[in-house]
Amino acid sequence: MEFTARQIAELLQGTVEGDSEVKVSRLSKIEEGEPGSLTFLANPAYTAYIYNTKASLVIVNADFIPDEAVSSTMIRVENAYQSFAKLLEVYNTIQRNKVGIEQPSFLDPTAKHGTDIYLGAFAYIGKNVVLGERVKIYPNCYVGDNCIIGDDTTLFPGVKIYSDCVIGKSCTIHAGAIIGADGFGFQPSGGNYQKVAQIGNVIIEDSVEIGANTSIDRATLGSTKICKGVKLDNLIQIAHNVEVGENTVIAAQTGVAGSTKIGANCMIGGQVGIVGHITIGDEVKIAAQSGIGSSIAKGEILQGSPAIPIGEYKRAYVVFRKLPDLEKRTQEIQKHLSNLRGTATT
Amino acid sequence: MEFTARQIAELLQGTVEGDSEVKVSRLSKIEEGEPGSLTFLANPAYTAYIYNTKASLVIVNADFIPDEAVSSTMIRVENAYQSFAKLLEVYNTIQRNKVGIEQPSFLDPTAKHGTDIYLGAFAYIGKNVVLGERVKIYPNCYVGDNCIIGDDTTLFPGVKIYSDCVIGKSCTIHAGAIIGADGFGFQPSGGNYQKVAQIGNVIIEDSVEIGANTSIDRATLGSTKICKGVKLDNLIQIAHNVEVGENTVIAAQTGVAGSTKIGANCMIGGQVGIVGHITIGDEVKIAAQSGIGSSIAKGEILQGSPAIPIGEYKRAYVVFRKLPDLEKRTQEIQKHLSNLRGTATT
Amino acid sequence: MEFTARQIAELLQGTVEGDSEVKVSRLSKIEEGEPGSLTFLANPAYTAYIYNTKASLVIVNADFIPDEAVSSTMIRVENAYQSFAKLLEVYNTIQRNKVGIEQPSFLDPTAKHGTDIYLGAFAYIGKNVVLGERVKIYPNCYVGDNCIIGDDTTLFPGVKIYSDCVIGKSCTIHAGAIIGADGFGFQPSGGNYQKVAQIGNVIIEDSVEIGANTSIDRATLGSTKICKGVKLDNLIQIAHNVEVGENTVIAAQTGVAGSTKIGANCMIGGQVGIVGHITIGDEVKIAAQSGIGSSIAKGEILQGSPAIPIGEYKRAYVVFRKLPDLEKRTQEIQKHLSNLRGTATT
Repeated sequence: MEFTARQIAELLQGTVEGDSEVKVSRLSKIEEGEPGSLTFLANPAYTAYIYNTKASLVIVNADFIPDEAVSSTMIRVENAYQSFAKLLEVYNTIQRNKVGIEQPSFLDPTAKHGTDIYLGAFAYIGKNVVLGERVKIYPNCYVGDNCIIGDDTTLFPGVKIYSDCVIGKSCTIHAGAIIGADGFGFQPSGGNYQKVAQIGNVIIEDSVEIGANTSIDRATLGSTKICKGVKLDNLIQIAHNVEVGENTVIAAQTGVAGSTKIGANCMIGGQVGIVGHITIGDEVKIAAQSGIGSSIAKGEILQGSPAIPIGEYKRAYVVFRKLPDLEKRTQEIQKHLSNLRGTATT
Repeated sequence: MEFTARQIAELLQGTVEGDSEVKVSRLSKIEEGEPGSLTFLANPAYTAYIYNTKASLVIVNADFIPDEAVSSTMIRVENAYQSFAKLLEVYNTIQRNKVGIEQPSFLDPTAKHGTDIYLGAFAYIGKNVVLGERVKIYPNCYVGDNCIIGDDTTLFPGVKIYSDCVIGKSCTIHAGAIIGADGFGFQPSGGNYQKVAQIGNVIIEDSVEIGANTSIDRATLGSTKICKGVKLDNLIQIAHNVEVGENTVIAAQTGVAGSTKIGANCMIGGQVGIVGHITIGDEVKIAAQSGIGSSIAKGEILQGSPAIPIGEYKRAYVVFRKLPDLEKRTQEIQKHLSNLRGTATT
Repeated sequence: MEFTARQIAELLQGTVEGDSEVKVSRLSKIEEGEPGSLTFLANPAYTAYIYNTKASLVIVNADFIPDEAVSSTMIRVENAYQSFAKLLEVYNTIQRNKVGIEQPSFLDPTAKHGTDIYLGAFAYIGKNVVLGERVKIYPNCYVGDNCIIGDDTTLFPGVKIYSDCVIGKSCTIHAGAIIGADGFGFQPSGGNYQKVAQIGNVIIEDSVEIGANTSIDRATLGSTKICKGVKLDNLIQIAHNVEVGENTVIAAQTGVAGSTKIGANCMIGGQVGIVGHITIGDEVKIAAQSGIGSSIAKGEILQGSPAIPIGEYKRAYVVFRKLPDLEKRTQEIQKHLSNLRGTATT
């Protein structure tokens, strides 16, 4: 698809500076601009590129004042970054507008679905499943019996959802994510372990995004719950009966053990480990690779394993690096005192 | 399905206290009990809930003495937790009683299988595979050529087993687990790496449970071996030629590097890293996020990266937090001594 | 298949010592040798086994001088380990020589492919995809629209590649790996997060190996890039816009955050976390479980979280273990000085 600068300016409610009929057909970074591409300038660190970019069209902030001539056409908007993000979104929506039921796929006769869904080949929809309007299920997905999936949700290829789970509206679940596998529950029984059956489910609320190969286990009883607006990156482990509060963001490879409750609006770094059966307050921030062994009050910012307030960790780590020196100094002091004592007793 | 209190008491060999004809059709937590639900009280911390629960039926320990009136019917059993776990198990078995071969699936003509198996749509069974009695293979699984899968084993959706692997009886392998991918073996060769072909296999003994998206690599030669009764959580990495001893339990996101032997009855926390070519004795316990760089004797309990005895780690970490203070104290001592010396020489 | 010692010696350009007509049909470890098996001796630590092995044939280094009688036939070669690796490779190539298009599979009419490809059942090839010569796509794989896959590349079962990605020649991608899922990009927007559409792709150059369940996200714009000869182990996370330089090797469960550039010929251990937007020079080595928070110059060797030069870390950790003792010594010094002062003022 090709668009003119004028058409894009209308979409973004911006003003054109230069050739309003110049045509673009793809998006690029400013430093990789080519004739026919559209780019943007928001971060001042990239300003130098605008004077040499070959991009046909550049979106800039309304208050941008060039120091040199700019040969590309510019569109001035209130917020160049947000406007460009909006274009990315539109581009993506067009790219991913799949509709229809490919064959062979498996749609149990008892399953129901809304209009304009996409069901890819080799996808499996079990008994009594309900798929909302415009749901997209890519190839090789599995949706177990009795699951409910809300309007406008997309499952990318190979997502597996065990029976009885509930997924909200406008969710995006990436390839290889596993929702509703059994929680890890065993009780010792004469030298072996006896499995504790896991008969709860997973509830994912609206507007949640779940990364590739992330796994979220079903509850023993009740529900593991991922609240509205949560964003989970790739390869994350969420154990049985965990709750993650609204709009909390968790980076890749973090693990949360059973029954822990995480508050709203938290930011949790990558490779963090969180022990089971604790409560993490709202707006908590946890640095990457930290280990959380006990409950955390609202708004705390932590680092370390076990985690402590981030400033405390950083200051302690500075001294950690100098420990051999500190030990040496202590040794010298002891020797000195021992000499003193020797002198004193002489 | 509905059951009466009397029927459940018979199943659990317990005694009814209250209305033995009350009917229940589902299981719940005690704090989420509703008319028609069955729950249990085992942990004294939850005792208060029994006086207000709306659950129709509560399983309690034989020696439970209420302080107030309990309106629900109770069933007294020797061990309320175990009895409830048994009910969960029965419930699950009924839920997951799938049998039959769905179409389209791919069952190589040279493959053999026992009676009452379940083969889901889009599952692939390669040449010369042998599936035991009552094996359940959910949709989108792949079982490579020459694999053997024992009686009563379940592969949840999307499990992939490379050729020549052997899976025991009564195993449960969760969605997305990968068994038998190539071990990570390369040798330097003129600036590049040359792949070392991995022609061994993976042997999984009876009663093993493997979590979602866990990967267990095949041996270079010989076998990677997961012994009887082992329980592996989600997203675990087991490298080529590793052995995990009987009834060892490993939590999520832990990784074990090549050729390491882990003993029996170990408990290994989440996100632990274990180096290759070492031996870990029986009954070892390793705290979450620890790093194991050398062999461990039987029964040790470790923490840290590199790991040290857990008590030692905890005591050292207490001082770690105070390091800036310790350094300051040392500075003051040095200044003091320097003053002393100054005075002395005056 | 059976081979004689003479045939194998010809293949390896070695010389036979013993019965050149002895036949072997499989490969084994030296300590697990059996009649009919072929093994090798390269590591001197295993020399004792050669005097008792039941293997029919042993490949040894040209300069090996036995201390006792060896009953097996030997083949002397310049490098026994490399020769054996070559045999493993040949064995594997024969084992994995699948060709043909199994049914049902989904091959979009607009897709093109070379000769002698393997397309497994339930594999999905989208619009405009180009598969090179001898490409092998195992069952349950997904290759999205517009992807290009080079000659002699293998995708093991269940690999998912999102649209528009480019995979080079002679690559091996293991089961469950996800290539091209959306990068983790969100911007705060009135208490919620707004998704930043990810419209770039992933480019994987030639001779790359990618482990099971590893995920490599597509770029926001431009490309996430895995250069020639890179080897990635299982369960690794590569975020959007990352670049991994030629012949760099990364062990399992490591994560690299967005836009970081890793140099060539690096060796990165398991469970390492690398922050976004930094540059790691060529030939850097990073110990397992380290946390990298800032750029690293060429050739550095680091450990710790945050990582510091490996020797520094090791020396500091030695003192860390003794911290309670160090604190005690400081206390005693302070008490002593306080006594001194008391004496002085008396």
